[in-house]
Amino acid sequence: MENHSLLFQCLLFTFLMYFSSTHSVKIPRLSSIPTWDTSLHHPATFYAKTSTDNINTFYYKQLLDHFNYRPQSYKTFQQRYLINFKYWGGANSSAPIFAYLGAEEAIDYSPEDVAFLTDNAASFNALLVYIEHRYYGKSVPFGSREEAFKNARTIGYFNSAQAMADYASVLIHVKKTLHAPNSPVIVIGGSYCGMLASWFRLKYPHIAIGALASSAPILYFDDITPQDGYYSVVSRDFREASETCYQTILQSWNEIDTAALSFLSHRFNTCRPLNKSSELKEYLIDMYTYAAQYNHPPRYPVTVICGGIDKGSFGSDILSKIYAGVVAFKGNTTCKVNAPSNLSETTLGWKWQTCSEIVMPIGIGNNSMFQPDPFSFKSFANDCKKLYGVSPRPHWITTYYGGHNIKLSLQKFGSNIIFSNGLRDPYSIGGVLENISDTVVAIHAVNGSHCLDIMGANHGDPEWLVEMRNKEIKIMKGWITQYYDDLLPLNGTINL
Amino acid sequence: MENHSLLFQCLLFTFLMYFSSTHSVKIPRLSSIPTWDTSLHHPATFYAKTSTDNINTFYYKQLLDHFNYRPQSYKTFQQRYLINFKYWGGANSSAPIFAYLGAEEAIDYSPEDVAFLTDNAASFNALLVYIEHRYYGKSVPFGSREEAFKNARTIGYFNSAQAMADYASVLIHVKKTLHAPNSPVIVIGGSYCGMLASWFRLKYPHIAIGALASSAPILYFDDITPQDGYYSVVSRDFREASETCYQTILQSWNEIDTAALSFLSHRFNTCRPLNKSSELKEYLIDMYTYAAQYNHPPRYPVTVICGGIDKGSFGSDILSKIYAGVVAFKGNTTCKVNAPSNLSETTLGWKWQTCSEIVMPIGIGNNSMFQPDPFSFKSFANDCKKLYGVSPRPHWITTYYGGHNIKLSLQKFGSNIIFSNGLRDPYSIGGVLENISDTVVAIHAVNGSHCLDIMGANHGDPEWLVEMRNKEIKIMKGWITQYYDDLLPLNGTINL
Repeated sequence: MENHSLLFQCLLFTFLMYFSSTHSVKIPRLSSIPTWDTSLHHPATFYAKTSTDNINTFYYKQLLDHFNYRPQSYKTFQQRYLINFKYWGGANSSAPIFAYLGAEEAIDYSPEDVAFLTDNAASFNALLVYIEHRYYGKSVPFGSREEAFKNARTIGYFNSAQAMADYASVLIHVKKTLHAPNSPVIVIGGSYCGMLASWFRLKYPHIAIGALASSAPILYFDDITPQDGYYSVVSRDFREASETCYQTILQSWNEIDTAALSFLSHRFNTCRPLNKSSELKEYLIDMYTYAAQYNHPPRYPVTVICGGIDKGSFGSDILSKIYAGVVAFKGNTTCKVNAPSNLSETTLGWKWQTCSEIVMPIGIGNNSMFQPDPFSFKSFANDCKKLYGVSPRPHWITTYYGGHNIKLSLQKFGSNIIFSNGLRDPYSIGGVLENISDTVVAIHAVNGSHCLDIMGANHGDPEWLVEMRNKEIKIMKGWITQYYDDLLPLNGTINL
Repeated sequence: MENHSLLFQCLLFTFLMYFSSTHSVKIPRLSSIPTWDTSLHHPATFYAKTSTDNINTFYYKQLLDHFNYRPQSYKTFQQRYLINFKYWGGANSSAPIFAYLGAEEAIDYSPEDVAFLTDNAASFNALLVYIEHRYYGKSVPFGSREEAFKNARTIGYFNSAQAMADYASVLIHVKKTLHAPNSPVIVIGGSYCGMLASWFRLKYPHIAIGALASSAPILYFDDITPQDGYYSVVSRDFREASETCYQTILQSWNEIDTAALSFLSHRFNTCRPLNKSSELKEYLIDMYTYAAQYNHPPRYPVTVICGGIDKGSFGSDILSKIYAGVVAFKGNTTCKVNAPSNLSETTLGWKWQTCSEIVMPIGIGNNSMFQPDPFSFKSFANDCKKLYGVSPRPHWITTYYGGHNIKLSLQKFGSNIIFSNGLRDPYSIGGVLENISDTVVAIHAVNGSHCLDIMGANHGDPEWLVEMRNKEIKIMKGWITQYYDDLLPLNGTINL
């Protein structure tokens, strides 16, 4: 598997958040954040590969700025979307449309990555549409990525409200083009685009009859979720896997701080000599974080790492044990630590998004296996301002989308949203974990991880995962049945 | 009464729509549209005057552009809002907040105009907040009205989505400042701001628990409502008042077209000699339209005009009868027709709004007492483009807010909206006239007119009007009771 998948995106979601939230974001850092070691991301066993044979590519002439009427607002760009017609029952049968709302990456591999859709499209006779998020992949305004990312004047149109208006426009266009006014649309997304899916249902109920929002931490804004929640869950995951492993990691930071850099470089077989111990620490934090977030069956990375650490094949001292954890997880064929880095478009794009709008105040508290590193909005904002010339707006997400007292707000408003979470996913701490109403529901798996439900099914999937997906399918079928019932008295009069 | 009231605003709403929809909008026209004869607008008996003694004025530092992150987006302006504390039960009692969402005019006189709020605040212990709409009154960006309206680069931020984000920000600020996190907010508006009220409830359910949307023609977009609906209702109103009156008006247009201008100027006692017969026709169309839209008790302008026409005190020929209708309605003390005009800020602002976003395709069909004048989007768009350099976006309102198949979209989504209409109001044809669900309800009065319910009560109000208002109050009380019930298990944990 290549470095383009949902896992990759989700990982960057995590580690970018980590960098943006727990470290100073200095200008040099933007170009020095290492691309995460991609060979780790996609053990083929994590999910099944889906054929892209049935994918058709389209472009829509999209408006740069839906929310203003300045001359510049009227610029357009080509927005890419993919359609898989293979399973569709067609317009005449009012067969449904599943719309995957593209996330912080190119859309090319989403059909493969979000194989939950292809796995289940046949039983719905569903059309599958995958819409690329503005400023990613081939959906870049201003003619080139370089121009689009040049400065805040051009990158300033890059945000979730604009992206959702894009999705709305594309979906109206697709339904019109396919003469499918009666086809109900369900939007689907995971992680960042899981947030988009739930918000889209709330903002555009006339376009989507429901949303499946997988691992969407929509409550990780303002002060709704404790800032230290994310890393507390990472730590809990490791502790549950092995108390000794947890203790070893807990003790390792001080060892790293006091060891000579040459010793560390040798011990961890780094690709280049370490310039500072934080290079190693950041690598390890990313690895633990990644392992916890994607603690998927059948491999369960946390268990793999802890197995290595506890076994201690390279020696019984703490740092040798930690290295054994690295090797257990990544293999020891080539160097991994402190490898030369490339900046992916996801890294660049997500950096902007977190520095403008998606301000998730994630820090490390005292209740973790890491060294404390609280979130400081002030320093975060300063660094973003230095990078882009504009400041983050930390309260916009809750102003526009809500989040505070969500049960009070939505228990008698809105319908047809599934918030699905795996509780081992550190982001689940910012997710919706309890039913808000009969139709805005939370599904969680105690042993689940990030976005697992919307990946493809495997023969070896544990029973709880099979059940979780079945539950989601059943609810979505219920939405569609209800929609057809509601449509019946109106039939023939519906239009777009 | 002065020329600042809700009636005035609503009138301009109408007649601007008329000009924008049924006539070429040429650049000279922008400055030549006459300010409507304000002495007509506010017969004191239309509604009771309310004291402004209890009004406190505040300003909020508002963001120019909520939806982008360009350097320019971060500009701010002072947004004005008014608060009446007199009736409020206070934060400790979680007493409600009624928020009037300012419309296409300065906010100064809204407390007087929307006296429904002051009439009923005491029985709710409600705080009354009136928020001025951006680009009107004192809430103008770029330092001055001149700069703000200079060209599309500055006026381009003037639209409903930005205005609603303004309202959201102000309401969060007010609740925070008053330490009133538990106080439920109900938003109220009429006509254009009735649309805003209903849309606000749909887009910001976490901020407003309900909306009273009076005379909000949210379905007069795209092809949802027949283009000729508005003028068909005007005509029906006149026909119901008097068949002979209706026939006289119907026949008058041809008479005007064939009469000499000097004769017309004399017959209608014009302030200046007519240059073309359309000047007279536009005056008359405005008058009929105004009379139908604001066919309020106890005066009932349509009845008054038809009384004059049918009586024919100035002669039995058609044009003399029409003139008698003018005199009956406006009095004959001074000239009215073809008076020199002033452009109000409402005229200028609303012109922009209809030319960018609020594209209501209103035309005159064959089924009316007027000469046919169908809506041509092409010519409308051309004229707007000439005026402002940017084109209208006729599908944005339905893309962002919906409208098509509204029952299907909202019957299981959303709650707590009252759509109130008077069926004699020509705009009611684009309103929601049937219940969408148990909690998104339509209230209409067969004999009602535009925005009548949210004006102040008078002793002579007909029973149906009293009942209409009581029904609204009862529903709003139900929302608040429900909210308190829902709040109870959460008490003490709510925050903003």
